[in-house]
Amino acid sequence: MAQNNPNPQGPWKITVYDQENFQGKRMEFTSSCQNIMESGTDNIRSLKVECGAWTGYEHSSFCGQQFVLERGEYPHRESWSGSNAYHTERMMSFRPICSANHKESKMVVFEKENFTGHQWEINDDYPSLQAMGWGTNEIGSMQVQSGAWVCYQFPGYRGYQYILECDRHGGEYKHYREWGSHAQSFQVQSLRRIQQ
Amino acid sequence: MAQNNPNPQGPWKITVYDQENFQGKRMEFTSSCQNIMESGTDNIRSLKVECGAWTGYEHSSFCGQQFVLERGEYPHRESWSGSNAYHTERMMSFRPICSANHKESKMVVFEKENFTGHQWEINDDYPSLQAMGWGTNEIGSMQVQSGAWVCYQFPGYRGYQYILECDRHGGEYKHYREWGSHAQSFQVQSLRRIQQ
Repeated sequence: MAQNNPNPQGPWKITVYDQENFQGKRMEFTSSCQNIMESGTDNIRSLKVECGAWTGYEHSSFCGQQFVLERGEYPHRESWSGSNAYHTERMMSFRPICSANHKESKMVVFEKENFTGHQWEINDDYPSLQAMGWGTNEIGSMQVQSGAWVCYQFPGYRGYQYILECDRHGGEYKHYREWGSHAQSFQVQSLRRIQQ
Repeated sequence: MAQNNPNPQGPWKITVYDQENFQGKRMEFTSSCQNIMESGTDNIRSLKVECGAWTGYEHSSFCGQQFVLERGEYPHRESWSGSNAYHTERMMSFRPICSANHKESKMVVFEKENFTGHQWEINDDYPSLQAMGWGTNEIGSMQVQSGAWVCYQFPGYRGYQYILECDRHGGEYKHYREWGSHAQSFQVQSLRRIQQ
């Protein structure tokens, strides 16, 4: 894994299992994994995050649906995959979220793409953006100034997840196409800081 | 609905539809609904929360799995049901969460049932209790002093939801059996305030 390791000093640790309920082949990682097949397993079916926050991906090379993984126990696929009409069967790659910083997170959300339209500076968690005064069920673009954030399609932290970091893309996400390869619309109804 | 209305003055409004994507028969409610069948439909397939926070229930008479519903749009079942190995096909009753108060929410979590063991006073959202220093993946009991809270089985606000309110049970939830008829264990790995 050393050649794929962008943060060898980080306080990160994730233990993955190829069977549900922390059974089967057990593998520990302290840095990113680009393709779980290279570790001799075809899939991850349970996991424990022991240190740091991570992003899991549906496909290898950090592509497809994204899942934020914070410290705790995930005994089966449903415990991390979130609620979507399109259910994901796999988690093939994962990496640490180096910039996650629960207390020092700040970003600006914009009504329109390319950082235009009405804007709002955010430094807290919002289970419902509309309840806090945001006028629509969409966000056009986002600028992450510090920390790492996860945005969700539906209120109450449900649906597709988009993980946005201050140290990726220069913190600039000017269109939903930059939120991740699975993003299909501007719909975002809740968002929150990621906890290290 | 008047006879089932515990809070006729409340600023609550929910619009439900018997088809996905806000299609089909449309019904507006400003107070609790004990059985959607009495409104002449067999199921809810999409909904919009226009005012206030609500709890949806799998069965009539506010039984079965619980779903917190905050302001926003829920175009299909998966958008509110959360991620569980056991998927719920129905939402048959719902009611306003009168005590939800995002800014003034406080509760105490206890390591053991009956308000014993190590305790921790909480007034913020915690996507991972373990990341914030809680030693296990369980909570034994909870005392809600103000506001309303939602606890989740898994980190990052996933899995079974348990809605706890200061004005129900006297705010006291001394065993998982009091968290809801669907609760099967003490496992709680994230929790947060509910937003009105």
